[in-house]
Amino acid sequence: MPVITFEGPVIENLEVKRKLVQKLTDAAVETFEKIPREAFIVLIKENPPTNVGSGGTLLIDRSKP
Amino acid sequence: MPVITFEGPVIENLEVKRKLVQKLTDAAVETFEKIPREAFIVLIKENPPTNVGSGGTLLIDRSKP
Amino acid sequence: MPVITFEGPVIENLEVKRKLVQKLTDAAVETFEKIPREAFIVLIKENPPTNVGSGGTLLIDRSKP
Amino acid sequence: MPVITFEGPVIENLEVKRKLVQKLTDAAVETFEKIPREAFIVLIKENPPTNVGSGGTLLIDRSKP
Amino acid sequence: MPVITFEGPVIENLEVKRKLVQKLTDAAVETFEKIPREAFIVLIKENPPTNVGSGGTLLIDRSKP
Amino acid sequence: MPVITFEGPVIENLEVKRKLVQKLTDAAVETFEKIPREAFIVLIKENPPTNVGSGGTLLIDRSKP
Repeated sequence: MPVITFEGPVIENLEVKRKLVQKLTDAAVETFEKIPREAFIVLIKENPPTNVGSGGTLLIDRSKP
Repeated sequence: MPVITFEGPVIENLEVKRKLVQKLTDAAVETFEKIPREAFIVLIKENPPTNVGSGGTLLIDRSKP
Repeated sequence: MPVITFEGPVIENLEVKRKLVQKLTDAAVETFEKIPREAFIVLIKENPPTNVGSGGTLLIDRSKP
Repeated sequence: MPVITFEGPVIENLEVKRKLVQKLTDAAVETFEKIPREAFIVLIKENPPTNVGSGGTLLIDRSKP
Repeated sequence: MPVITFEGPVIENLEVKRKLVQKLTDAAVETFEKIPREAFIVLIKENPPTNVGSGGTLLIDRSKP
Repeated sequence: MPVITFEGPVIENLEVKRKLVQKLTDAAVETFEKIPREAFIVLIKENPPTNVGSGGTLLIDRSKP
């Protein structure tokens, strides 16, 4: 612990996941200097646009031209 | 924010997802009249019956004849 | 199951909580007609403005005149 | 309710899921003797090593020789 | 990781929390023999009956005589 | 959306919360350059040491001399 859960879009590129995990952990470590870096867990949760609603509309319906 | 997370079964039909997101948002907007509709996020989380336990038994084992 | 988690503001009025739980459940029941009403669980999670960030700023700092 | 969410690795074997759900429920039932076993829900969330960070590094990068 | 989140009632007695954390961890360790006990995190989330709905009704309204 | 949930210790100092929200959002914005900063939500969840288990032991019991 601490556990950082990132609910976001589908991420195709593994390099983006690497960057996200590293940067989120950096942010947390810089804030909690007494908690060892190893203690921080990040969970990346990928949500397809068919499964996310904003303002009552699915994202997949929002992105249509 | 607010964020509504719906942990439920697998949903094959996109129309059902549309209806769920719209109705959950309607319910929240009717309750919090001062929060703009656009602020409400819904996350649909689909759980296969192999990954859900009820009373200590997997749903997939419960539905067997 | 299903489980609906509502991450929202602090709610002072119990009547608002009653309405929210009822309306969210109505919304879900209308969408999943084969799942009995009793199966639906709603968890209301109250988040003070000191604990929510939007665009990198705490809500409590956003609401200042 | 109660709802137990298990965020863990990908589980290939259905028997492992059966055992996990049963044992987690046993643990909870032994702790809360007044809550009927049927009330306990378990959600198994499988996280691939590409989606979990520990100490700022993806698990998939940690397991490389 | 893994992370076990227990969404349940308010727990007044610290001893009950000790027992819950130990038993849930035992259950997980017995299921995943290759994951060291130290890796398992348990988060106890206490939900007052005013914040939980079942079948569309707040638990606090269900327990009234 | 995206929604970043930080499950961590109790944070007494508001300034630490400000820093955490800002740095987590910076980290996410730097990773997802196409998503506007305003879209990112951070939820800070404070867990007392009586409610967190590590390796089967409550944190409050671990910190005793």
